[in-house]
Amino acid sequence: MNIAIIISYDGTNYSGWQSQPNKKTVQDELEKALFKVFNKQIKTYASGRTDALVSAIGQVVSFNCDDLFPPEKLMYLLNDNLPLDIRIVKSYEVDNDFNARFNAKNKTYEYNFYFGKTSNAYFDKTFSFFKGELNINDMQLACKFLVGTFDFSSFCASGTEVEDKTRTIFNAKIECVNKEYNQYKFVVSGNGFLYNMVRILMGTLINVGYGKIKPESIVEIINKKDRKFAGATVKAHGLVLVKVEY
Amino acid sequence: MNIAIIISYDGTNYSGWQSQPNKKTVQDELEKALFKVFNKQIKTYASGRTDALVSAIGQVVSFNCDDLFPPEKLMYLLNDNLPLDIRIVKSYEVDNDFNARFNAKNKTYEYNFYFGKTSNAYFDKTFSFFKGELNINDMQLACKFLVGTFDFSSFCASGTEVEDKTRTIFNAKIECVNKEYNQYKFVVSGNGFLYNMVRILMGTLINVGYGKIKPESIVEIINKKDRKFAGATVKAHGLVLVKVEY
Repeated sequence: MNIAIIISYDGTNYSGWQSQPNKKTVQDELEKALFKVFNKQIKTYASGRTDALVSAIGQVVSFNCDDLFPPEKLMYLLNDNLPLDIRIVKSYEVDNDFNARFNAKNKTYEYNFYFGKTSNAYFDKTFSFFKGELNINDMQLACKFLVGTFDFSSFCASGTEVEDKTRTIFNAKIECVNKEYNQYKFVVSGNGFLYNMVRILMGTLINVGYGKIKPESIVEIINKKDRKFAGATVKAHGLVLVKVEY
Repeated sequence: MNIAIIISYDGTNYSGWQSQPNKKTVQDELEKALFKVFNKQIKTYASGRTDALVSAIGQVVSFNCDDLFPPEKLMYLLNDNLPLDIRIVKSYEVDNDFNARFNAKNKTYEYNFYFGKTSNAYFDKTFSFFKGELNINDMQLACKFLVGTFDFSSFCASGTEVEDKTRTIFNAKIECVNKEYNQYKFVVSGNGFLYNMVRILMGTLINVGYGKIKPESIVEIINKKDRKFAGATVKAHGLVLVKVEY
């Protein structure tokens, strides 16, 4: 039968989703758990790779397996064989032609950040720190220029093999988490994201926040279709895959 | 000179604030950093001990040291000698008779929790999970009965040496963090807390949330002055010392 699971993970101790030789990855842990439950190798497909240190609230993964257990019970069997920093929150049967990778319609990411004079060790557990003052209103305004269907070459790590860099961003905004502590999140959803795209979008918004560039400069940067005009790739810590819709 | 610092820490890797033989504690790390900066042993006083695994956004610590550096620069010198999961956010000079332990007027703690059918590995970074459904309205109502000056013997770990168990709770409430994810925090402030008191208060509120006891039962439990009538001591993970006022 064909199964989809919604899986959460704390990315801190993983080299990302995708299997890699000699690295600890979420996919390897899941496939090890599947092996223990089904006693055979099972190939899994995630909605997309998440980089090293990136966490997930609701990554979606699909795989084909023998019809041995009720689909909704499968999560418990797998959780018993997974480390605590990986937890399946739902398992269910899907149509035979469903593939979590190819059928994703809308992915939502958030990047948790805070700013100020000094960092706070407790906030650092889940937020990324930026020293100094960020103008959140300007960052908010800049977000509006990201919404739409564009060639996002400027926001893609160089050396990527993907040819068509056109993606649609449905929604992009800065949400306040705690005003007193200057904690915010950049929430962005789209039909797909290029390699490092969310982290480069965030790095560019940070430049807006620092007043290095104007909010409307986003339009020019998109039009340049050249990585060198966008901001830095911010660190992965703070980035979370929130949900995937099909 | 007499110095106060506001210090934050991720409690995950520490056996609490207070120095103990053969344990890794926040106090030891801070006193090691002070030794490196001043080349002498310096005794520190925190507003209160925090248990193993408890974090702090704004613990206050005071100590006496030589007048070698501007007080407000001291935090940078100390941070350079502290692990990244301990960060000083402020350092300043205080009156000679100031002691962070004895002069605290108001301490605020928060306990971060969420509930539902299954836990989420990302939420588990900072929240404590309770399986099933919690009635947050009833928990909110129960909080009102905690406010006031009472003998809190029912909410104190047995075997504690403290004689006077009268404390004043100024404020107690449940705040919503994210309704969609059933994430909440219990925020409580008072002039002092007994050993394990916040965790036992939380355990009792959880019983209210599960419908095992009524919100107004809090009054009876306080009046019993006996630990066995209150709820369980919930786990330390999720508990954060937010701020201390003088």
